[in-house]
Amino acid sequence: MIVSIIGTGLIGGSLAITLKEKGTASRVIGVDLDAAHLARAVELNIIDEGASLDVAMERSDLLVLAIPVDAVLQILPRIMDNIRPGQVIMDVGSTKAEILDLVKDHPNRGRFVAAHPMAGTEYSGPDAAVRNLFVHKTMVLCDVKNSDEDALELVENMVDQLQMRTVYMNAEEHDLHTAYVSHISHITSFALALTVLKKEKETGRIFELASGGFESTVRLAKSSPDMWVPIFKHNRSNVLDVLDEHINQLQQMKTLLELEDYDTFYKLIQKSNKIRKILK
Amino acid sequence: MIVSIIGTGLIGGSLAITLKEKGTASRVIGVDLDAAHLARAVELNIIDEGASLDVAMERSDLLVLAIPVDAVLQILPRIMDNIRPGQVIMDVGSTKAEILDLVKDHPNRGRFVAAHPMAGTEYSGPDAAVRNLFVHKTMVLCDVKNSDEDALELVENMVDQLQMRTVYMNAEEHDLHTAYVSHISHITSFALALTVLKKEKETGRIFELASGGFESTVRLAKSSPDMWVPIFKHNRSNVLDVLDEHINQLQQMKTLLELEDYDTFYKLIQKSNKIRKILK
Repeated sequence: MIVSIIGTGLIGGSLAITLKEKGTASRVIGVDLDAAHLARAVELNIIDEGASLDVAMERSDLLVLAIPVDAVLQILPRIMDNIRPGQVIMDVGSTKAEILDLVKDHPNRGRFVAAHPMAGTEYSGPDAAVRNLFVHKTMVLCDVKNSDEDALELVENMVDQLQMRTVYMNAEEHDLHTAYVSHISHITSFALALTVLKKEKETGRIFELASGGFESTVRLAKSSPDMWVPIFKHNRSNVLDVLDEHINQLQQMKTLLELEDYDTFYKLIQKSNKIRKILK
Repeated sequence: MIVSIIGTGLIGGSLAITLKEKGTASRVIGVDLDAAHLARAVELNIIDEGASLDVAMERSDLLVLAIPVDAVLQILPRIMDNIRPGQVIMDVGSTKAEILDLVKDHPNRGRFVAAHPMAGTEYSGPDAAVRNLFVHKTMVLCDVKNSDEDALELVENMVDQLQMRTVYMNAEEHDLHTAYVSHISHITSFALALTVLKKEKETGRIFELASGGFESTVRLAKSSPDMWVPIFKHNRSNVLDVLDEHINQLQQMKTLLELEDYDTFYKLIQKSNKIRKILK
């Protein structure tokens, strides 16, 4: 089948590489508002050709929206209006409730499958695209009962070819859980980077002392605001809720340190160690 | 030379492995209050034998204190009192000001070298000890002007054999910078784990959705409270200071989300992206 990837960055590009490699796509057409990105994606052989959205819609069996959530919300209705029979549209955005709400009464709703691969890196753009980004990761499919059976099957087959596990959720569940396990990690990391950059004027010293632990907690702070601001915006209430709890936890630790109540502090750390059971 | 490692956990054990492998130590004696740890360290061939502190002091050229900062503060004076001519004592603790303050007027101060390898993992105990933990990492040596020349040289040679870079600092500088690049990362990670564990009752869902980003920000939350509570205790004012700033940064982000001021939020993330220059 011919697949069009709208947005030839980290996720779209990595998807394109794998779909071509596996033979899932006989041809991959790339669409990107950023002409330099599109040219680079062709140069890197990530996509077979660049095209306009209209041309891509005319020629492809599957269209994948791999652009920031804001942009999905903008162009999805127009795409759904102009869909050809048999075509399937999927998005891979990081928030789902608003997107699904937007198209819930659309006459072509059945042709749309809402997906979110729980995979990524802190890098962006076509140069960030990599093989095997999705292997053994989780693909969340949302509100699949509203997708046509053949459209869902096409996406599910693709997910299998990507060697991903599939998890089914409704959009609200998805947005809640991703706020907890993904969005708050990014907020924390951005804030930590700002903290250290502000506190630590002699950047040479950071260079010298920063070790693995620091790198691992702040690496997400390299992530693109173009992707993340829309996520925080469209998952605002869940993110605010978990951010509030996170600030409370930090405040509690601060208070315990101020009071020099090291016994309670010890117990808190022990409690946090339970995360061992959840992480591999 | 004969080296005694006091504390046969992650750092002490990894040090023992490397010193034996490089031939720096002809024999490694292990000392550990935890008899099971000591037996395990022998079983894993990390140390040549287990012994009491007194026996270790009697027989070794170099004693390395690789125990939590609290314990260093407790036993260091006794060790310094009973030192034999030519012996060198070093510690590898994560805070330095209190330790160095404790021994600053000791008649044998010159025999002591205060060191901190900027290396580690979130695991602890002899089973966590690994080869090459220190390769290309930084060893901080503190207040070296108060160490005897031969003692310092012995430690510096050892650092070379570990293939580490050396950075020299005074204790106050050390404690300040490590609060910024190491201690706050751990606080954040502990707090994030507590946040998610509290918010996310259906742990199965975390399993399914947790991806690389989440793992990387919370992995430090697996770290041992036995090691970390003493660090926070003995670097309390620096940790409080940076924790305060971190809470402020999170509060600011929260306020911006509440106000839906996404332009300023975008600029904040851009600013935090500058951490790219500092991380490799």
